[in-house]
Amino acid sequence: MAKKVQDALKDIISLCKRRGFIFPGSEIYDGLANTWDYGPYGVELKRNIKNLWWKKFVTSRKDVLGLDSSILLNPRVWKASGHVGNFSDPLVDCLACHERFRADQLLEDKLGEGCCAGKNFDEVHQMMMDNKIECPTCGKTDWTKPRAFNLMFQTEIGVIEGEGNKVYLRPETAQGIFVDFKNIVDNVRPKIPFGVGQIGKSFRNEITPGNFIFRTREFEQMELEFFCEPGTELEWYNFWRKYCFDWLVNDLGVNKEKLRLREHAKEELSHYSNGTTDVEYEFPFGWGELWGIASRTNYDLTQHQNESKVKQEYIDPVQNKRYIPYVVEPSLGVERLLLVLLCDAYEVEKLENDERIVLHFDPKIAPVKVAVLPLVKKGKVKEKAEEIYQKLLNHWNVEYDETQSIGKRYRRQDELGTPFCVTVDFDTVGEGESDPAKLGYVTVRERDSMKQELVKIDELESWIAAHLI
Amino acid sequence: MAKKVQDALKDIISLCKRRGFIFPGSEIYDGLANTWDYGPYGVELKRNIKNLWWKKFVTSRKDVLGLDSSILLNPRVWKASGHVGNFSDPLVDCLACHERFRADQLLEDKLGEGCCAGKNFDEVHQMMMDNKIECPTCGKTDWTKPRAFNLMFQTEIGVIEGEGNKVYLRPETAQGIFVDFKNIVDNVRPKIPFGVGQIGKSFRNEITPGNFIFRTREFEQMELEFFCEPGTELEWYNFWRKYCFDWLVNDLGVNKEKLRLREHAKEELSHYSNGTTDVEYEFPFGWGELWGIASRTNYDLTQHQNESKVKQEYIDPVQNKRYIPYVVEPSLGVERLLLVLLCDAYEVEKLENDERIVLHFDPKIAPVKVAVLPLVKKGKVKEKAEEIYQKLLNHWNVEYDETQSIGKRYRRQDELGTPFCVTVDFDTVGEGESDPAKLGYVTVRERDSMKQELVKIDELESWIAAHLI
Repeated sequence: MAKKVQDALKDIISLCKRRGFIFPGSEIYDGLANTWDYGPYGVELKRNIKNLWWKKFVTSRKDVLGLDSSILLNPRVWKASGHVGNFSDPLVDCLACHERFRADQLLEDKLGEGCCAGKNFDEVHQMMMDNKIECPTCGKTDWTKPRAFNLMFQTEIGVIEGEGNKVYLRPETAQGIFVDFKNIVDNVRPKIPFGVGQIGKSFRNEITPGNFIFRTREFEQMELEFFCEPGTELEWYNFWRKYCFDWLVNDLGVNKEKLRLREHAKEELSHYSNGTTDVEYEFPFGWGELWGIASRTNYDLTQHQNESKVKQEYIDPVQNKRYIPYVVEPSLGVERLLLVLLCDAYEVEKLENDERIVLHFDPKIAPVKVAVLPLVKKGKVKEKAEEIYQKLLNHWNVEYDETQSIGKRYRRQDELGTPFCVTVDFDTVGEGESDPAKLGYVTVRERDSMKQELVKIDELESWIAAHLI
Repeated sequence: MAKKVQDALKDIISLCKRRGFIFPGSEIYDGLANTWDYGPYGVELKRNIKNLWWKKFVTSRKDVLGLDSSILLNPRVWKASGHVGNFSDPLVDCLACHERFRADQLLEDKLGEGCCAGKNFDEVHQMMMDNKIECPTCGKTDWTKPRAFNLMFQTEIGVIEGEGNKVYLRPETAQGIFVDFKNIVDNVRPKIPFGVGQIGKSFRNEITPGNFIFRTREFEQMELEFFCEPGTELEWYNFWRKYCFDWLVNDLGVNKEKLRLREHAKEELSHYSNGTTDVEYEFPFGWGELWGIASRTNYDLTQHQNESKVKQEYIDPVQNKRYIPYVVEPSLGVERLLLVLLCDAYEVEKLENDERIVLHFDPKIAPVKVAVLPLVKKGKVKEKAEEIYQKLLNHWNVEYDETQSIGKRYRRQDELGTPFCVTVDFDTVGEGESDPAKLGYVTVRERDSMKQELVKIDELESWIAAHLI
């Protein structure tokens, strides 16, 4: 199950471990198939990402509601959604070394994305042979025919054995929204157009997880289902495409040059979709999908209506007509966005006589907003630093660090992406041979420019607040 | 698997559905074994609870770090922790109706908590017979002997069948913290005493889920493992017991009369614990556990050291000695705390000629902080109301409601627990035969007292900020 990690990612993975962002899962037991744990700084990164998404896509919008539905759903949900029948990958074995791969991935790596769209298993096999696809492990080119491998994790619920109590871990959060559509409409009474957003874990038993946190079997999604009147869906599809892209660039500061919108060609579209776009990012291992924005027509609600026999209609009170709404779905993975932000922020910067690693996070994303650094760990300097730390803690996630030299502490904060370091020294507290003009001032050092500025303690909170925007 | 829901809970469950707090899971497919989905207001309640816990127990404390570890862990984790061998309930079948129950729960309902502590299965069976325990379904008193039923959900990971790739869904978040202990110590270098907190989903295949969201198979935990020097653990155990209790009462406003600390008797303690306390709440169905605070000695880390052969020691840099830290664990369920807050806030209040249902949430907990209500849905009134709504949205979760009469809208917000309603009328905008003295003023109505106050629009944000504390 191990997969070669691209060299260009290695430095980021190493930094992530060394600085407490991301640890290999179950590491003391030699890991578990590309699982990852989020350490003290990683968990704050994830929290910031999720809170920013929630604000932008849910609470700040009059037309979007939030939801938190279960991971375990009645298995008929996945029959209706098509996941039981169709949510599978074409699995091939190398006849020489018996390693197992996804045929579509091997083909796409060579021929480009979408090359397998609409092909059946025989055709895929023919493509493998025609293009002499090499086994990534042993280099040979002989393959079994593809077999369907369902990606849903199964488990059993309840205490009565052998009574058909098989359930699945959800492979997406979206179906939970569709299943609750009627409860939301009946009880909260939103008017169309409206959306329902949710954040939560999903699970896919991927054949080839890898590329660090890009593809993992356990992951977290931020999904929005936007319900609208039939005929208006392409308008909303365009709206959400732009809304998502702009958020990445304008709010999160992602480098526009590394983003692109890839619209699916007609033959690549799912049979129910009349428009799908992937927002792609240029990762160190190449372009990869970050965000899928799909116009899904009324497919999902219709399927659930057919399977459950419960009407999934919306009654328009103004036009006095009934219909099953059309849906536009922007679907994003928390960890993929985190990986984008890490790759985008990471720099090994050459300095005059030195170099440093720095994460140029937007301040909104940075796990620590301010670090308070006392020059020495005793006396008035320590006292004052702790007082400042406690005060800043009311507003932001702040770190207190009194180990090693100030220079080393700056470097450590650079690697955490902390926008500001506040140094408290003898001048600040008027101890020893200090400069009386600097009494009551601290030194604030900015991460990217490394410039230092004296700021009066009384004005520190408002100074930081103004500079964090 | 169905369980009779206590009558006293019914009204709360009904309100929760009707007002979009909590929906039955998979309801259009006739549900799934006591699963619940959190609707637009429920998800905000959960978010508030989790954010307040995170701030109180993690970010505001210099001595606590955050973590977000995987749900899927290497199965050896559960061998080391004892969950593979011991994490099971004594299952009994009624010989008359064949319904299945937990023997310990039936006994505790009749004889009080802790009555089964330390008893083996034969002794438990004897207690069932001696006390003529009745089947809750059919009333008969004949039972099978108890059998061990492991509570962990199993699934298979990976694509190679039959190669021992069985994994479990974690039954607690705590072990993820122990497994990452070494990575945290080596890479983040905190000094003992320090804690690691995390919030996340856990899964237990409970035999008798029920009492609404009190006991569910999928749930979310907020757990803290606090690592300290051997010999100091009981001091910390007392510290955290008080810290947790005070947070409930002082920060979240839970009624002290409905809380109690129940310290486990010596014979009731787990073999590795030298002190355990349950914080219990008096639910409509009786006293139930809310929070477990346990002094777990060095049991977990020692077990992982033995199983993984990786040293789990801490090197004390000041005293220059090595030891496996002792641990104090406060462990709380998000949904249980949510149920406490719902039960505690719920009131059917008699008014002079009327009655209302109101949720007296602490403003910090309330899913909506302010509702903006335009008297009419057009003209200047609507314009001004929307302007105010947009402005308030910068600070809080705000709702805009223009349906039905103001009185009905107040009642709706009472049922959501919204602390303040802001009404915009003709006076506010100087339209029609309005009072010129009220131009530029809105009416703010407080939820509990139902008192109304005129507030100048320019001062509205600061007025609300001051009253939300």
